[in-house]
Amino acid sequence: MTFTAAQIAAIINGQVEGNENASVDNFGKIEEAKEGQLSFLANPKYEEYLYETKASVIIINEALELKKPVAATLIRVKDAYSAFAALLSRYQELVQQQLKGIQEPSYIAKTASYGADVFIGAFAYLGEQVTIGNNTKIFPGVYIGNNVTIGNNTVINPGVKILHNCQIGNNVTIHAGTVIGADGFGFAPQADGTFSKVPQIGNVIIEDYVEIGANATIDRATIGSTIIRSGAKLDNLIQIAHNVEIGSSTVVAAQAGISGSTKVGKGVMIGGQVGIVGHLHIGDGAKINAQSGVSKNIEPGKAVTGSPAYDYTSALRSQALNRKLPDLEKRLKELEQELEQLKKHL
Amino acid sequence: MTFTAAQIAAIINGQVEGNENASVDNFGKIEEAKEGQLSFLANPKYEEYLYETKASVIIINEALELKKPVAATLIRVKDAYSAFAALLSRYQELVQQQLKGIQEPSYIAKTASYGADVFIGAFAYLGEQVTIGNNTKIFPGVYIGNNVTIGNNTVINPGVKILHNCQIGNNVTIHAGTVIGADGFGFAPQADGTFSKVPQIGNVIIEDYVEIGANATIDRATIGSTIIRSGAKLDNLIQIAHNVEIGSSTVVAAQAGISGSTKVGKGVMIGGQVGIVGHLHIGDGAKINAQSGVSKNIEPGKAVTGSPAYDYTSALRSQALNRKLPDLEKRLKELEQELEQLKKHL
Amino acid sequence: MTFTAAQIAAIINGQVEGNENASVDNFGKIEEAKEGQLSFLANPKYEEYLYETKASVIIINEALELKKPVAATLIRVKDAYSAFAALLSRYQELVQQQLKGIQEPSYIAKTASYGADVFIGAFAYLGEQVTIGNNTKIFPGVYIGNNVTIGNNTVINPGVKILHNCQIGNNVTIHAGTVIGADGFGFAPQADGTFSKVPQIGNVIIEDYVEIGANATIDRATIGSTIIRSGAKLDNLIQIAHNVEIGSSTVVAAQAGISGSTKVGKGVMIGGQVGIVGHLHIGDGAKINAQSGVSKNIEPGKAVTGSPAYDYTSALRSQALNRKLPDLEKRLKELEQELEQLKKHL
Repeated sequence: MTFTAAQIAAIINGQVEGNENASVDNFGKIEEAKEGQLSFLANPKYEEYLYETKASVIIINEALELKKPVAATLIRVKDAYSAFAALLSRYQELVQQQLKGIQEPSYIAKTASYGADVFIGAFAYLGEQVTIGNNTKIFPGVYIGNNVTIGNNTVINPGVKILHNCQIGNNVTIHAGTVIGADGFGFAPQADGTFSKVPQIGNVIIEDYVEIGANATIDRATIGSTIIRSGAKLDNLIQIAHNVEIGSSTVVAAQAGISGSTKVGKGVMIGGQVGIVGHLHIGDGAKINAQSGVSKNIEPGKAVTGSPAYDYTSALRSQALNRKLPDLEKRLKELEQELEQLKKHL
Repeated sequence: MTFTAAQIAAIINGQVEGNENASVDNFGKIEEAKEGQLSFLANPKYEEYLYETKASVIIINEALELKKPVAATLIRVKDAYSAFAALLSRYQELVQQQLKGIQEPSYIAKTASYGADVFIGAFAYLGEQVTIGNNTKIFPGVYIGNNVTIGNNTVINPGVKILHNCQIGNNVTIHAGTVIGADGFGFAPQADGTFSKVPQIGNVIIEDYVEIGANATIDRATIGSTIIRSGAKLDNLIQIAHNVEIGSSTVVAAQAGISGSTKVGKGVMIGGQVGIVGHLHIGDGAKINAQSGVSKNIEPGKAVTGSPAYDYTSALRSQALNRKLPDLEKRLKELEQELEQLKKHL
Repeated sequence: MTFTAAQIAAIINGQVEGNENASVDNFGKIEEAKEGQLSFLANPKYEEYLYETKASVIIINEALELKKPVAATLIRVKDAYSAFAALLSRYQELVQQQLKGIQEPSYIAKTASYGADVFIGAFAYLGEQVTIGNNTKIFPGVYIGNNVTIGNNTVINPGVKILHNCQIGNNVTIHAGTVIGADGFGFAPQADGTFSKVPQIGNVIIEDYVEIGANATIDRATIGSTIIRSGAKLDNLIQIAHNVEIGSSTVVAAQAGISGSTKVGKGVMIGGQVGIVGHLHIGDGAKINAQSGVSKNIEPGKAVTGSPAYDYTSALRSQALNRKLPDLEKRLKELEQELEQLKKHL
């Protein structure tokens, strides 16, 4: 798709300076952009590149005063970064809308159904009673088990596996390789030291506007549902165990793991590689620093760090003193010696 | 599948109270169940729901004395939870047994062979000389490399990859997306700072009754075998490196990683996100707390925690004192000042 | 493939002792090898097995003096281990070269192209404008998005997903299930507490001789490229975030995670389960111990450990003292009591 500066200016409500017909078919960073690419300048640190870049069209802030002539066509807007991001979002929507139809070979059970403008890629598998809404895109190699429902405008990337009975909402994005609805990890210890499997017959519910990263795993509930509430954003390689609930607009960074039946509130920030044990409550707006190991409930709004995790500020203080332990021990030893000396003198 | 209260009572050896012909085709938690669902009451905390639930049939303990009339049909058994779990297991076996046949398109090499009552899903790939036992279920999109053998009653979930020469036993379950038999991570440093690959020509052996979670990785041995012994249970996203051995009935929680050539004994409990370095021996029955970093052998039956991990009780005491470091430093400072004062007075 | 002792000796430049026509079609460890297998003895600790093994052909060091007669045919070389490894590499190259052709069903877009001697497995997907070099092997179930380029002699294992616009070099190996080019994790917080996606329009560039483990994730850049430089070796389940750069010949062990825009130098060693926060510089030749949490830049050549990570030697000293905290507290208490006593006596 090619766009002229005038077309772009119309979309982002900007003013063109230079050749209105300059056209672009691609994006680039201002310091690397080539002819035919669109770029933007938001951070004043990069202004020097404005005068050197080969980009054909550049979005800049209204307020910017040029220090030298610029070869590229400029589009002035209030906030260059926001305008650029909005343009990209619009562009990606256009690209996605164009992706339509059923590629062959794919496997669509006779009882499966789907709405208008869907894309179903080659080697995708739709089991019995699967229902898929309008404008949803199922990429190649996706597996969708029996009785799964998927809403509208949702994107299921290549190789995602969604197992039987799970429910996926509208405007959800699931990245490649992720597994939704594998069995929870439930085994009952037997008298002879072996383990007997506890059947996992619940499902996973993923609400609207959720995004889940690549190669993540979200297990089905033992009974009932594992739930990811609307607008939550989960990164790559995260593990969500059976019967967990993740609150709306909560953010979970890569490689974090949340154990069974823990309930995470709204607007919580969970750092990378965090581990949370089972059956806890994490209050709304809590912040858990990367690599923390959470073994107790967290009050709403509280920040924690460390493994085991506790109050952020106190933990930082202990961490700092921990580094000074050799010095503390030295001071202790000196005290002991001085006291010994003192006692001799008495 | 629909069952009447009488049929269920016959399977779990229970007594029906109410309509013997009440029928169910699904399961639900007592607090959420709908008409046509089977539920159970084991925990007295939930007894109030017994009088409100819409479940059609409920399994309860023999000993329970009703406080009010119950709308649903009841089935009384010695232990409601065990009876319910046993019923679910039986139900899942029935569902699995019904899953039979070869879906198209699939790729089955001419030299591959399989037993009775197998299921081979669409887009599954069976390489040369693959052999698969009776009643084993290969879900869609599974890759099975050359010379792999798989036993009876085993379930390989969607998108699992089992690479050449690996051996999978009977009654094994491998969850979606897991990779068995990728190359071990072996590289020999060269004089010029680059690395030369050490060929990985061993395999992976997975014994009977093992269960492995989703998106896990179990690497093939450099030479010989990486072995997961019978009845071991491994959770999602775990990493088992080349030439590792995991003992029978050992349990490994999500996101744990075990480095090359480490031997883990029987009945060991390994918590989530644990890391174990290479070439260690972890004794039978050892317990490793979540997020521990194990860098030394562990004696049989010992419990450890921390990173680096050591004796559980001692480590907890140090962790507690670590939180009190600001207080300890304050006491140290006070002592120093008092001693200073004291010396002036002498 | 079957080889005689004479053929093997010719390849590795060795001297045959015994039956030149003894033939092998497989490899085994000396302590486990069976008839028809080739083995080697490099470590003198295993010499006893030389006199017991059933291996048909054994590679040994030139200098080894036999203590008893050996049933197998021997091949003497300068360095038995190197010769064996070289032989295996050569063998694997041969096996790989034999793997050729296009299996059906596969999906190859009309605008996709590929070189000589490629293998494209069943259920592989090649999108629009994909280009693949000579002798590259695309295993079954691989997804290659639009505009991806892949060089020569590269191996893409089963179920790998490489998304649109990514570039993969020559002699690269990517193990099963790995995802290259999923969206980076970028969301802008909104006034109402929700998050708005920042479009991720960059790509991933993987240079020559890189090896990437199984079920790993390497995210595309927001703008520009996430780059893995030549000869870097990345293990299973690692997470590389958007706009990260990994220097040449850097080694990253399993389950490590590197956050957005961090630049890692050349020849860096990153241990298993390490986490590195975003926007850092890790100097050439740095060493990061397993499970470390890196939150600050690291100077070239420096070694660090701990979470948060700092200087390796200092951190070890603090870790040791941390274990002695109960003892330190006891000494502190004793001092306090003695001082109290002392004050009474004055």
